[in-house]
Amino acid sequence: MNLELALRMCEASVKQAWREGALVSVAVVDAGGHLVAFQRMDGSEIAGPALASGKAYTAVAHRMSTADLAPLVVPGGELYGLAGDRYVCFGGGIPLRDSGEGRRVVGAVGVSGGTVAQDVACAEAAAALWDGG
Amino acid sequence: MNLELALRMCEASVKQAWREGALVSVAVVDAGGHLVAFQRMDGSEIAGPALASGKAYTAVAHRMSTADLAPLVVPGGELYGLAGDRYVCFGGGIPLRDSGEGRRVVGAVGVSGGTVAQDVACAEAAAALWDGG
Amino acid sequence: MNLELALRMCEASVKQAWREGALVSVAVVDAGGHLVAFQRMDGSEIAGPALASGKAYTAVAHRMSTADLAPLVVPGGELYGLAGDRYVCFGGGIPLRDSGEGRRVVGAVGVSGGTVAQDVACAEAAAALWDGG
Amino acid sequence: MNLELALRMCEASVKQAWREGALVSVAVVDAGGHLVAFQRMDGSEIAGPALASGKAYTAVAHRMSTADLAPLVVPGGELYGLAGDRYVCFGGGIPLRDSGEGRRVVGAVGVSGGTVAQDVACAEAAAALWDGG
Repeated sequence: MNLELALRMCEASVKQAWREGALVSVAVVDAGGHLVAFQRMDGSEIAGPALASGKAYTAVAHRMSTADLAPLVVPGGELYGLAGDRYVCFGGGIPLRDSGEGRRVVGAVGVSGGTVAQDVACAEAAAALWDGG
Repeated sequence: MNLELALRMCEASVKQAWREGALVSVAVVDAGGHLVAFQRMDGSEIAGPALASGKAYTAVAHRMSTADLAPLVVPGGELYGLAGDRYVCFGGGIPLRDSGEGRRVVGAVGVSGGTVAQDVACAEAAAALWDGG
Repeated sequence: MNLELALRMCEASVKQAWREGALVSVAVVDAGGHLVAFQRMDGSEIAGPALASGKAYTAVAHRMSTADLAPLVVPGGELYGLAGDRYVCFGGGIPLRDSGEGRRVVGAVGVSGGTVAQDVACAEAAAALWDGG
Repeated sequence: MNLELALRMCEASVKQAWREGALVSVAVVDAGGHLVAFQRMDGSEIAGPALASGKAYTAVAHRMSTADLAPLVVPGGELYGLAGDRYVCFGGGIPLRDSGEGRRVVGAVGVSGGTVAQDVACAEAAAALWDGG
């Protein structure tokens, strides 16, 4: 992950949010889950910094999209009880993998502020810029 | 619990993980829930330090395996509402008991990174080395 | 504060960092201390997200630059004992005020990663874009 | 950083601790500050998991040894006020750098449990195994 790409990812999410009629925050993190770039659209919720960053962190930490993680953490789900002050376990976080063997997770994008479907669409618009490094 | 045994337990879990085709983190804690040894396999998720240690802590704290604890914390379960920043309440944490009367819990092993079934299998491989002190 | 201006502020700080030969993180927050934009230069420290955001938050929270706050928090200083998980009390955070009566604080910029003098110079480069709204 | 090397680093620190007559904990973290391996000697303090890991994290986060950081955080020092729940700012944490241009920090070792001088000696014994990747 690098800043130039992270900025383009943020822009792609914001553009998608305009299309969706949503106001979102976008966070891009590196392989360690640490923030590289963040943007919050004017008028979007103040929870965005924590939630968008949390979704991106969670996508790195569990090496799966937070949309895929969501059904696992409901009561009776395999990962019910998963907890931690940076976990956000509903759709909008997508891990980014390198193209090498093992498909190592090297970062993630997280979006929050719209409906879950909007957040996912905005995160996918960002992830589409990633080509495996 | 002692470091020499804790290291052998970590190795046993890692070996089992290879057999399972999983990438895991393993934590061994003492009777106070404090880390004695920890190992994270190359390429395994960064959530491992918190989750493996959390499962081991939880197994000591509640004197039961986290797999047995899981159904108790669902809505309507006896311990629903259990919360704390070190609790992880799904399978993969196993308490270790001495052989004396009372079967005192003297430590635990916690594994995270695979499926819950894989985590449990890896934790059991470690616990099998324990003979009651 | 708005995203477009926050982005230009981040860019101004990054440009100044190149001039200084420093690698920094830049955070811009709104009147509530909540992140609007964040950028971390490639190769800069992972402490940046917490420290740059913390300096910006602190500058809003205390309505003064963190450089001015620093001498107040030493032993014997007026604010010695100031503590909180988001406070960062050394130079690099600068509050932004509107031009109306009362000079209300409406946001702040925070920079971290270089020496304190470099961080301050980078934050000032960003604050220079602010004209009181 | 990889597990095999991290384990050898832990062993080197433990061996040095025997020579020093100290009982220590050793933590090795990756470029994101996340634990790779940890070992606590029998009889050493229960603060070890937090302190050794914290020193290693801090050495990565600030890209300098915690011994070099210590004088900067005293009252009147440039970084006085540095705070965060994972920071430990006295000697015993040493960053590990790759040999490429930029000398990127790719991990760190942290030791705690002895005197600061002993902790530093034990951390240096581990760091000596690192050859720049």
